[in-house]
Amino acid sequence: MAGSVFGNIFKVTTWGESHGKALGVVIDGCPAGLPLSEEDIYPFMERRRPGQSSFSTNRSESDAPEILSGVFEGKTTGTPISIMIRNSDQHSGDYSLIASAYRPGHADYTFDRKYGFRDYRGGGRSSGRETAARVAAGAVAAKLLSALDIRCQAYTLSIKDVRAEKMAMDEISQNLLYMPDNEAAKKAAVLIEEAKKNGDSVGGVIECRIKGMMAGLGEPVFDKLSAMLAKAEMSIGAVKGFEIGEGFNAAALYGHENNDGFIIRNGEAAKETNHSGGILGGISDGSDIIFRVAVKPTPSISMTQKTVTDEGRETDINIKGRHDPVIVPRAVCVVECMADLVIADALLMNMSSTMDGLISFYGR
Amino acid sequence: MAGSVFGNIFKVTTWGESHGKALGVVIDGCPAGLPLSEEDIYPFMERRRPGQSSFSTNRSESDAPEILSGVFEGKTTGTPISIMIRNSDQHSGDYSLIASAYRPGHADYTFDRKYGFRDYRGGGRSSGRETAARVAAGAVAAKLLSALDIRCQAYTLSIKDVRAEKMAMDEISQNLLYMPDNEAAKKAAVLIEEAKKNGDSVGGVIECRIKGMMAGLGEPVFDKLSAMLAKAEMSIGAVKGFEIGEGFNAAALYGHENNDGFIIRNGEAAKETNHSGGILGGISDGSDIIFRVAVKPTPSISMTQKTVTDEGRETDINIKGRHDPVIVPRAVCVVECMADLVIADALLMNMSSTMDGLISFYGR
Amino acid sequence: MAGSVFGNIFKVTTWGESHGKALGVVIDGCPAGLPLSEEDIYPFMERRRPGQSSFSTNRSESDAPEILSGVFEGKTTGTPISIMIRNSDQHSGDYSLIASAYRPGHADYTFDRKYGFRDYRGGGRSSGRETAARVAAGAVAAKLLSALDIRCQAYTLSIKDVRAEKMAMDEISQNLLYMPDNEAAKKAAVLIEEAKKNGDSVGGVIECRIKGMMAGLGEPVFDKLSAMLAKAEMSIGAVKGFEIGEGFNAAALYGHENNDGFIIRNGEAAKETNHSGGILGGISDGSDIIFRVAVKPTPSISMTQKTVTDEGRETDINIKGRHDPVIVPRAVCVVECMADLVIADALLMNMSSTMDGLISFYGR
Amino acid sequence: MAGSVFGNIFKVTTWGESHGKALGVVIDGCPAGLPLSEEDIYPFMERRRPGQSSFSTNRSESDAPEILSGVFEGKTTGTPISIMIRNSDQHSGDYSLIASAYRPGHADYTFDRKYGFRDYRGGGRSSGRETAARVAAGAVAAKLLSALDIRCQAYTLSIKDVRAEKMAMDEISQNLLYMPDNEAAKKAAVLIEEAKKNGDSVGGVIECRIKGMMAGLGEPVFDKLSAMLAKAEMSIGAVKGFEIGEGFNAAALYGHENNDGFIIRNGEAAKETNHSGGILGGISDGSDIIFRVAVKPTPSISMTQKTVTDEGRETDINIKGRHDPVIVPRAVCVVECMADLVIADALLMNMSSTMDGLISFYGR
Repeated sequence: MAGSVFGNIFKVTTWGESHGKALGVVIDGCPAGLPLSEEDIYPFMERRRPGQSSFSTNRSESDAPEILSGVFEGKTTGTPISIMIRNSDQHSGDYSLIASAYRPGHADYTFDRKYGFRDYRGGGRSSGRETAARVAAGAVAAKLLSALDIRCQAYTLSIKDVRAEKMAMDEISQNLLYMPDNEAAKKAAVLIEEAKKNGDSVGGVIECRIKGMMAGLGEPVFDKLSAMLAKAEMSIGAVKGFEIGEGFNAAALYGHENNDGFIIRNGEAAKETNHSGGILGGISDGSDIIFRVAVKPTPSISMTQKTVTDEGRETDINIKGRHDPVIVPRAVCVVECMADLVIADALLMNMSSTMDGLISFYGR
Repeated sequence: MAGSVFGNIFKVTTWGESHGKALGVVIDGCPAGLPLSEEDIYPFMERRRPGQSSFSTNRSESDAPEILSGVFEGKTTGTPISIMIRNSDQHSGDYSLIASAYRPGHADYTFDRKYGFRDYRGGGRSSGRETAARVAAGAVAAKLLSALDIRCQAYTLSIKDVRAEKMAMDEISQNLLYMPDNEAAKKAAVLIEEAKKNGDSVGGVIECRIKGMMAGLGEPVFDKLSAMLAKAEMSIGAVKGFEIGEGFNAAALYGHENNDGFIIRNGEAAKETNHSGGILGGISDGSDIIFRVAVKPTPSISMTQKTVTDEGRETDINIKGRHDPVIVPRAVCVVECMADLVIADALLMNMSSTMDGLISFYGR
Repeated sequence: MAGSVFGNIFKVTTWGESHGKALGVVIDGCPAGLPLSEEDIYPFMERRRPGQSSFSTNRSESDAPEILSGVFEGKTTGTPISIMIRNSDQHSGDYSLIASAYRPGHADYTFDRKYGFRDYRGGGRSSGRETAARVAAGAVAAKLLSALDIRCQAYTLSIKDVRAEKMAMDEISQNLLYMPDNEAAKKAAVLIEEAKKNGDSVGGVIECRIKGMMAGLGEPVFDKLSAMLAKAEMSIGAVKGFEIGEGFNAAALYGHENNDGFIIRNGEAAKETNHSGGILGGISDGSDIIFRVAVKPTPSISMTQKTVTDEGRETDINIKGRHDPVIVPRAVCVVECMADLVIADALLMNMSSTMDGLISFYGR
Repeated sequence: MAGSVFGNIFKVTTWGESHGKALGVVIDGCPAGLPLSEEDIYPFMERRRPGQSSFSTNRSESDAPEILSGVFEGKTTGTPISIMIRNSDQHSGDYSLIASAYRPGHADYTFDRKYGFRDYRGGGRSSGRETAARVAAGAVAAKLLSALDIRCQAYTLSIKDVRAEKMAMDEISQNLLYMPDNEAAKKAAVLIEEAKKNGDSVGGVIECRIKGMMAGLGEPVFDKLSAMLAKAEMSIGAVKGFEIGEGFNAAALYGHENNDGFIIRNGEAAKETNHSGGILGGISDGSDIIFRVAVKPTPSISMTQKTVTDEGRETDINIKGRHDPVIVPRAVCVVECMADLVIADALLMNMSSTMDGLISFYGR
């Protein structure tokens, strides 16, 4: 059960290693009739692409997504959408050193223990490059959501201890760190630069807000919308924590502080506040969904670290090569795309919830 | 896709409402030959049971689990294990008030929006009582894990702002809050008592440690062990956050602080530290798995709250009845049982990872 | 992966052994708002029940289904429907002989090889009694289908070489063999009586017709409606073959004989003939679905047979006890119920096929 | 739930239309360490390839499979194996006629009803060309099976009413119809030639035999090995029937004729006969598995047929273009490959059946 399949109805299978010929994704279950072309996917790939700033690796992957199936005359046909991205810029030579020594904080050791050996070139399947396929799929999901006026937007909340002090959504695209606060972004940039100089790295927190939600998505017990989002986000390599609404802070509040009272707003039931983060009992309540994920510092650092070889010998390791001193800005798009996938799936899953819906669908 | 099925191979389906005739669970995929009886399950039910202290509801449910199938002559047969727990203590009258008004922080409103109506008696399917079935299943998983010397243990790390100052595992069972620090537990008890008196409630943080892990469990991409654990824990009603290892703190560390160097210990590769929380690249690394979850304050409080009725009228609500001023101590066992389920599933999922394993299994 | 879960959205988990305390089924994914009570299920149980004629075992199981969850004020709530049937009439003593010797044509041997041991009482999980849980679930699915004016009806086409010569649907309920031809049923009864006298048994063919189908159900590749039906029916213990429309006869026809031309009927596209059996390319075409299954003769016969013991010794076996000389009439209801389950699932699966459907569902 | 994913652990997702850029398959769950290269897949593609005889279409597709991921240094890595096959020979012009008129016996009409429109070029997703991806996946599964000395072999049993009179396995590869009887193949060739001359087509029956099986594969209830095989085979476009062992003939036998007595052979329990076709109670019994499928005559015929247009007008249709007058010989390899996929999956599924297996796997 190799776990490269995600989703229940909007079902996504990713494949590909960092230094193989290509990587890609097959989306099975996208409804027919969605206008779709490579132009819809390309901007998402661009946001995730490395080499955009001094904070990200200089690999100039073109990352051009190619739609191979499932689209006819500009619209999805209801059959699997296969998207491939060629790996054009591979310096396998860079990785020869790590073929035998385990990089701290990476999956080298655990892959060897699980499978007996591994594709050591650039992290193979556990490379951050795997997320390119998720982003391609997420772009399709985002297109689907836009037809329903739903939008997921992720941004950087903090880099190490530099936190956005304001929520200026228009500033997100104005700095290379995708922070809603240009000033904070400047401070963070200094901090990142310094870490880089030291051969070190830093982490941060990404927040995602989903606007335009209707109430009723998510299932009551194991497939709570919050649980599905948590799994999706925690499946991103560098993510170490997930929280929704007040999150860990809720543990320190009184009940009367954390509960959201209901009121009538514009003739409809609505919550006075949104401590819940848009989900009650695992089901969307119609307000914005807000969650945060913790991204660890890039494990690849050039400082000297202790490690062992696959033959059981202790050694030192200095990881050279092109590595981001911070993963956060590139992960912003991945976090967002995983949310797109979950919401698209939840929308389709919810369609079979009631007899009224069923009977009306079939017009009987 | 109603989402009451959990797991891939060790597959668990729970059913039942708070005030129905019974609730229960069917486990499909438990290997044959595991010694099992109701005696193995009962102690877990006891730990989750309400009415054990002044902090939990006085409902004296007997919670006696009845194994209806899948066990023959004291051992599991490989066929589904059906476990039923009768609902013996129902005061439906207590809940008549909430039939029409939505309780803040509860799923009343979202159920109505999703399904058009709801079983309003005691929260129905979204009641905390649903977790009794998870605990019964978790007890079976824990028995399976014990055959491999693996043990999940959860405990209370903090109640509101009172945090355990030491990790005395033997003290966990010595206080009603399951804290590894009797002194902290005393302080927390005072705080809970006060909240209760005010008609209010508090939350807390639960930590879980999994000992005896082998390396290699979990799958590399979407079914990372950390992602599966996150989904499992976030599917518990009151849980608002999940983090593993350093978790959110990792976002504030430097790479050289967060990475765990490898060394040789007892002739085997091991990590010097365990910032990763026992999982690298989604796959267990052989050290203890450590994660934490944030539990919100009980949403049912007797203080006056604003709400609306299902007919769209604003009103005040005071929730009477037997409600815990804190969910944390009862959730400790649920958090642990969800981890048991995930690890049991991951163990079985991993068996098909290599050709060597396959060939050796079939002895060819 | 023990395989006791069936269906994708209308998801059914059965549990229980022939001689355990009870058996049952949990249905997860039935839409909310379906009127349902035990009265809807009981007639289906009656049709499957043994002891109705001299052709079926005299075990007077009461087979009273008890709905334990998922129904509130007479309607399904969208949460799991748990149905239990107590095993009231167990003569475990009857089966002591077969604890060690393998019955030809039964699963005794293969269970031992798979699991190392088995619940030998009455066939345990592989007993025909397991189908009682399928029938309970099928009754719920049939209720759902009736809301859309879809009806599955199975009947006996032949017993050994006695075949129904006419298709008088009203006669099906007039004979104990559920044949649409009372005359044929009489002849078949004589044949069965004779086999019984000889300690032997016979098989037959069951046909099922699904009326009221809309076009568009079933998925194009692996989840063709015909493939889903085939799996469902072949999962019934005694079924050895499945065919749809012309079935095996199609292999002997010319293309121009087997193709169904399209015409306009009542202003709509329709097929002139129905050689396809109502499914084209795996998707329902709007005409009646017609399929047939082959049921083998009851493997339990009292004639002397060669077998071996679980200790590897050759021996003779005469299977005593209450056994039907023919399974066919009791299987009629099971075949029909499996079809009900598949069509209910396909209806729900198809709801997410198009963007038009999605947008119209959410009214945006 | 678009149903392009097949299998539980050895999980296969196919994608691609007849006249798109390419088609392919992603295999998630193939164990690590299986030696694999394109050379293993190519011979299977060749057997399925059209243009090998006058009975198959003259499209000279090269069908060269390209492995894009999941293989490193000649062995599978445990991560997804992506295989792509470019569509090189597309004459979209040939199909312009059928853009608006529904071909009898094809999925044109049902696709339109399900999705609102369709990729009409060459049948799109419902083209027989889709099976190329299945064959590529089947080749990988066959390689896995060969490591356990299991082999699936399919062959043509009959073409229309010409049936193989002998079972000479060495003759299968000696005639273009893959019949185990060269004489019968000659007669069948005449019959096919005549049908072709008339603008007509014929069908046939394919048998598959699986050698080297161990006992214990398959799951007892819904995932019976026979049910999984039935679904797999019935998911092939032109297949209209499936039977195992005696199949439909079992319905006409007495119990004492159909049962297989057990004996001791070479010191082990074995069946005297194999009427069951190698599966008892859904679980393999260690003897050869034998099943048959009915293949309908090619629906594309050049004889004039009645049909309607997508605008609801009656019309005549003569299907020109390159079409096989018989699908059977090309389907032989597809039938075999679907069996390979099922057995590979069943092997992996069965590994988690017992505690003994689990404990021995983890060496604890």
